[in-house]
Amino acid sequence: MKKKIYKANILYTKEKNCFEVLENGYVAVDADGRVIGVSTDLSTLGADASAHRNAESDTELVDFGDRLLIPATNDLHVHAPQYRNQGIAMDLELLPWLQKYTFPEEMRYADTGYAERMYRRFVRDLWRFGTMRACVFATTHTASTRLLMHLFQEAGLGALVGKVAMNRNCPEGLSESVEEMVRGYEELIAEFNQPEALVRPIVTPRFVPSCTPEMLRACGELAAKHQLPVQSHLSENKDELALVQTLESIWYGAAYNRYGLFGQTPTVMAHCVYTEGKEMRLIKRNGVMVAHCPTSNLNVASGMAPIRKFLDEGLRVGLGSDISGGHDLNIFRVMVYAIQVSKMHFQKNHARPFLTLSEAFWMATKSAGSFFGRVGSFEPGYEFDALVIDDSDLNHDHYSLPERLERYVYLGDDRQIVHRFCRGKEVLKPVVTFSSPFCV
Amino acid sequence: MKKKIYKANILYTKEKNCFEVLENGYVAVDADGRVIGVSTDLSTLGADASAHRNAESDTELVDFGDRLLIPATNDLHVHAPQYRNQGIAMDLELLPWLQKYTFPEEMRYADTGYAERMYRRFVRDLWRFGTMRACVFATTHTASTRLLMHLFQEAGLGALVGKVAMNRNCPEGLSESVEEMVRGYEELIAEFNQPEALVRPIVTPRFVPSCTPEMLRACGELAAKHQLPVQSHLSENKDELALVQTLESIWYGAAYNRYGLFGQTPTVMAHCVYTEGKEMRLIKRNGVMVAHCPTSNLNVASGMAPIRKFLDEGLRVGLGSDISGGHDLNIFRVMVYAIQVSKMHFQKNHARPFLTLSEAFWMATKSAGSFFGRVGSFEPGYEFDALVIDDSDLNHDHYSLPERLERYVYLGDDRQIVHRFCRGKEVLKPVVTFSSPFCV
Repeated sequence: MKKKIYKANILYTKEKNCFEVLENGYVAVDADGRVIGVSTDLSTLGADASAHRNAESDTELVDFGDRLLIPATNDLHVHAPQYRNQGIAMDLELLPWLQKYTFPEEMRYADTGYAERMYRRFVRDLWRFGTMRACVFATTHTASTRLLMHLFQEAGLGALVGKVAMNRNCPEGLSESVEEMVRGYEELIAEFNQPEALVRPIVTPRFVPSCTPEMLRACGELAAKHQLPVQSHLSENKDELALVQTLESIWYGAAYNRYGLFGQTPTVMAHCVYTEGKEMRLIKRNGVMVAHCPTSNLNVASGMAPIRKFLDEGLRVGLGSDISGGHDLNIFRVMVYAIQVSKMHFQKNHARPFLTLSEAFWMATKSAGSFFGRVGSFEPGYEFDALVIDDSDLNHDHYSLPERLERYVYLGDDRQIVHRFCRGKEVLKPVVTFSSPFCV
Repeated sequence: MKKKIYKANILYTKEKNCFEVLENGYVAVDADGRVIGVSTDLSTLGADASAHRNAESDTELVDFGDRLLIPATNDLHVHAPQYRNQGIAMDLELLPWLQKYTFPEEMRYADTGYAERMYRRFVRDLWRFGTMRACVFATTHTASTRLLMHLFQEAGLGALVGKVAMNRNCPEGLSESVEEMVRGYEELIAEFNQPEALVRPIVTPRFVPSCTPEMLRACGELAAKHQLPVQSHLSENKDELALVQTLESIWYGAAYNRYGLFGQTPTVMAHCVYTEGKEMRLIKRNGVMVAHCPTSNLNVASGMAPIRKFLDEGLRVGLGSDISGGHDLNIFRVMVYAIQVSKMHFQKNHARPFLTLSEAFWMATKSAGSFFGRVGSFEPGYEFDALVIDDSDLNHDHYSLPERLERYVYLGDDRQIVHRFCRGKEVLKPVVTFSSPFCV
């Protein structure tokens, strides 16, 4: 790959409180897909304007004109096998929803043919909305999980994919013995756990109520042995908190921590709606990442995570779509909901201000991106994950660049995304045709 | 116009609690654009399957195949001159937002050239999202308001358009004397106030704090004299409530009522976030329509209107986009937000269940539609306002018809709307080119 220089209107967040804005700026990307630098002065980037006119040059200059160039978004919490259920059964409460819709649907992923048909569309739609990296829950099924990982590789998108570990409080067809779970993981680890790989396994106990102590212990051991990241759910609703206390005789975060599943390796925990006090302090001390899922908070009526408080306390926070508790895969929409949920906290208690656009953007790009490496910014050394936005239909009057970005976040959709890059490579539309060698 | 029979998968709400669902159903529409009947049996609709094969027949049969046919949506509260500000300045609170963005923008509508450029796009975008009727705030400017009404006529969409009356607590350029206000209204009334017209004037005092008692009295007299409907804002935030109490020495709803602006003619009041007790009872007694604007409730952080309570009490409730306090013109998205806001109430107090999809749909179609006549349902005698939805991209597995509709509401956008009808006529995409005879 040649060194590339992209010219466009560049916006990104180094710090959460403000946008870096470069009108007609340049970003230089090395042959490995890492950012060399960003500037409005081409000469400071070790290239000149003639670069693109010289076929012999080792640098290619690509001019995106008046378009916006921004870091791609990252989705820190999404259930791939709930793709079919996206946007249905929203009138149900959590328990009947799990029993009637979620578990029966996940059982269908025993069939890799069905899995491929759904997963191909799921990966295509992540791509559509500009999500270049995701932390993904699959199902307990090793074969379908392997297939999903191949589909991410084929697409060129980054993903941490978790075969789900669960062996209690779930239907027979989704329960696995600890030994089966470990064997399945070892298979996936052998095939996928390469350093620097875009697609890697992530240890995924569904949540404490679904896992016996033996299962949780085995998960912690897997994570430690292979230095794998961990993902799960934490403190989403009050009944769940009480249940965990009964099962483990300790508070929720401490239960994960006991088994080495709480920051001993990089860990992301979804929801944290009722996280406070000692749980918050342990999250901070262990560097656990919070995946805030505001659409899900509203749809499932679980409560609203206190994100401003988490940011004030210095916790790491990113955003998640939580399909299908959340209904929208578009992380830009999830940013809007994050701001709105924080406004609801603000409305109750004016002591803490609501989230600004730059904070929501930073959470979805640089903060969430840090879970995947140096991802989510255009600072030197960052992997070039980026979107080119043609907002000409939204930009019908004299708007400033930050206003154009705000309008894209609030009003735009996949139609305005005209190029997508992951680790420096342009990612083209994934194929959805059902004709893959993985379907065995 | 010939009698028409449309075949499709038909969904609509007679009552708020459930959908009427006709798989491969027919709806017959008379030459005046009114529904004759709906059935799965063509013979009961006074036609047979040969209708479309017989050019001599007085009935044309149009087959929409597997598509969904639903009532079009209605927007009960939208500020047309805030179209440019849609999706910007969302980090600001109400007062600086009004001073820095809203009022300066509205002042630009003194220029009908500017107004036409913005209003044409606004009308086009209402059309895009399937809104066939709207209650619209314009500005104080009579010429621009007239222009907007012509654009609605040209487009073939239904609208009640209000020249805004205001003469205090606003910039000089937006203030008008009572005499000027009345003169402007009389002009618009002379031109547009035809019975049965799709586009009519609506008396629009901005809200009590912007109008002196003389202005409010003149508004009430105009409404009574010409039997015009009325729209305004009510009980959106607590400071506003206190201000009205100071200005009028009475509670908010009673202030409008005192001037004949609270149901003496058909009246729609936006927000009603803090409406309770006697205000709620007066709204009910006077048949005032509540325009619930959930996106605006969240964006402006004013609080969340207690819609379940209003429905339980038998109040009339519809939905509004409230551009640009709300950010989304798409009333299907506003339905989603209405459900989510009600879930937030539910989460605090489980005594009242959250809104269901059919309730949100009913509010946006039949309930809101009742403000425009017999609009928003497919029952006999209703004006045929309808959308044809091609959801083939969302319908990738075996979904039931209600699930298909739910997925469209939660996941769809304007791309799936393939036909739009207002009062029986198909409405084609409005022109946005800036070359109109109205620009004088």
